[in-house]
Amino acid sequence: MNDAYLDHASATPVKKEVLEAMLPYFSDQFANPSNIYDIGSEIKSVVDEQRAKVAELIGAKAEEIIFTSSGAEANNLAIKGVGFAHQKKGKHVIVSSIEHHSILNSARFLERMDFEATFLPVDEHGYVDPERLVKVIRPETILVSVMHANNEIGTVEPISELAAVCKEKGIIFHTDAVASAGNINVDVDELNVDLLSLSGASLGAPKGIGALYFRKNLRLMPLIHGGIQENGRRAGTENVPGIVGFGKAAELAKDKLSVKEPYVRKLRDQLIDGVLQQIEKVTFTGHPEKRLPGHASFCFEAIEGESLIFMLAQNGIYSNTGSACASKALKTSPVLGAIGIRADLAQGSTVFTINDNNTSEHIDYVLAKLPPIVARLRSISPIWGKKIPEGEEGVCT
Amino acid sequence: MNDAYLDHASATPVKKEVLEAMLPYFSDQFANPSNIYDIGSEIKSVVDEQRAKVAELIGAKAEEIIFTSSGAEANNLAIKGVGFAHQKKGKHVIVSSIEHHSILNSARFLERMDFEATFLPVDEHGYVDPERLVKVIRPETILVSVMHANNEIGTVEPISELAAVCKEKGIIFHTDAVASAGNINVDVDELNVDLLSLSGASLGAPKGIGALYFRKNLRLMPLIHGGIQENGRRAGTENVPGIVGFGKAAELAKDKLSVKEPYVRKLRDQLIDGVLQQIEKVTFTGHPEKRLPGHASFCFEAIEGESLIFMLAQNGIYSNTGSACASKALKTSPVLGAIGIRADLAQGSTVFTINDNNTSEHIDYVLAKLPPIVARLRSISPIWGKKIPEGEEGVCT
Repeated sequence: MNDAYLDHASATPVKKEVLEAMLPYFSDQFANPSNIYDIGSEIKSVVDEQRAKVAELIGAKAEEIIFTSSGAEANNLAIKGVGFAHQKKGKHVIVSSIEHHSILNSARFLERMDFEATFLPVDEHGYVDPERLVKVIRPETILVSVMHANNEIGTVEPISELAAVCKEKGIIFHTDAVASAGNINVDVDELNVDLLSLSGASLGAPKGIGALYFRKNLRLMPLIHGGIQENGRRAGTENVPGIVGFGKAAELAKDKLSVKEPYVRKLRDQLIDGVLQQIEKVTFTGHPEKRLPGHASFCFEAIEGESLIFMLAQNGIYSNTGSACASKALKTSPVLGAIGIRADLAQGSTVFTINDNNTSEHIDYVLAKLPPIVARLRSISPIWGKKIPEGEEGVCT
Repeated sequence: MNDAYLDHASATPVKKEVLEAMLPYFSDQFANPSNIYDIGSEIKSVVDEQRAKVAELIGAKAEEIIFTSSGAEANNLAIKGVGFAHQKKGKHVIVSSIEHHSILNSARFLERMDFEATFLPVDEHGYVDPERLVKVIRPETILVSVMHANNEIGTVEPISELAAVCKEKGIIFHTDAVASAGNINVDVDELNVDLLSLSGASLGAPKGIGALYFRKNLRLMPLIHGGIQENGRRAGTENVPGIVGFGKAAELAKDKLSVKEPYVRKLRDQLIDGVLQQIEKVTFTGHPEKRLPGHASFCFEAIEGESLIFMLAQNGIYSNTGSACASKALKTSPVLGAIGIRADLAQGSTVFTINDNNTSEHIDYVLAKLPPIVARLRSISPIWGKKIPEGEEGVCT
């Protein structure tokens, strides 16, 4: 069915070895890890082994990993958990303006709780300038969150520099590594971060499992209160099969990274070069060099991204608009707005995310199908070839 | 290995049909249900079919179900979500004193957020008296939460009466049905509740999936902010395999309930009668009639529950202490404290939860093994046969 699935940032098939590792933990070894008897404590050991594997992927210690149900939950736990636990010190948080919605909306939630939030602007490549960060830090700033890599435009941020700014001032630093882990090296010490979010699904584990790394002894208010699972930091019976899948996927991701990175980079460059050579009036979005190896993102002029996605899908090519947009209101992705993409152009946003199960033939196939589809959509576009009058470009929000 | 697994309230094996239903959604039909293209929207339809099945189990509409990662998350979403969304009306919540920790600690979290919380006492059977509820309601009360059935002592609460009290006064009513769903009839209209929590795991779905029912149009602040999954009420990519498992488990639970209920009730009564006949100085805890059909709970005098659990497990019998207790401090379960069980007696708490995969032979086996184990533990107990001096019984906290 999937001739060329190039939407790995949205969803990735569970790896065969991952599912195999999980299978015994549904019906056979099903006990609750909180139980004191043998079959319970055996499962607890299994959970802790996976904790060590996930920690190893990012250079952390097992006891610094809190399992969550998703990257979104990890992001919520980081922002709200630090906010509520450290509010006596100050009630100001800074997040970049191109964060995932789970960060942006957690910061907005804190605003409703009488915190102040600064949404830090980025440059035209979506890059967060450490000097810009310095300028918005206040004495009451307790937390800064900047994502390691952006899922929509692929830009990789200068996390260690940003974190150094914060460390100097005693401010807690969080990064969302959902898009980067398994694609580039992620090491909590090199990045110098206090908290880091992960999603199992993006590593080939199933949906429904994530993790938050927190530097040992960092105080954190739980998001889910209740029992003392995850050392009192996240209540609820552990998702044992999901955790086992996550552990296996983290292990595989670590082993394969050095081979995967150059492999997908080559495919990505093949795609980018082909698109820019064969199609006119295309804006390549995100940072030209500092970007995820498997990430290619474009805005095609005079095209509705959704129509393009549909027509590509009819040909077995799966890609993404990056973010849903309400075309009537010319409301575009906040990320594309933040990097200054004109609203009409942002409508034509299309994102391809490549994984190591893709091949050069997939890219050839996309390069054969995409140009005629773009040409066809432009031929029926009311704005193709017309200059948008000044002031009517729409507003990026 | 499991000669007699009688700890189904802690964990239940995933049913064969449930795992089979889930398998295609790991590696084959893996797309993200938020995606607009065909393979994404097909998964969205699958998710919504499961939503309808879960709704059907409790007499609700599909659009009234929010999938969560656990019963604990559903409880947190109910308490905090109502608290934050309705705080302009008032900042007082009432929960029974025998609620699950995810309710008790969510209420305590609201106290830290300048709410007031009342922990409503129960009678000696753990029963919540509607007249007692009336007395603690204030003009600023916005939410009452009382569990449908208690996991530690099996008591089934008079939810429809308690909810009627609240409805009359315009107060939102939540019930935690994690222990009851699949064991007794759970119907949101009969119970007259506004919110109801479920766990997939207790129905034979895997760990890592739960749901919150909310009556249509009820305002709720999300616990996990981010994207617009679950109609904007719970962010994060949907746990598709878990949701499919939950749907199947809910369907099976509904189909089997009328057969399961009398079946496990008979086994339970066989166990209770046998224990009370064969062992002296045993207190049967919870309500004698209004209790879960598969739930038998006891406190054995002069015994450490943990030792009993271990010795039973050595014989392949799996049961629970009900709640972990720090024996040195004579700190007992808050539930047993709330029903007035003496602290030294509460140490000997043992809970058996029976499911339809248990047989009469399992109960015979327990009744053969349990009395000599109790006798042996009592023979080495420093307090067996001694009267605990007045004032030295310890305090239940």
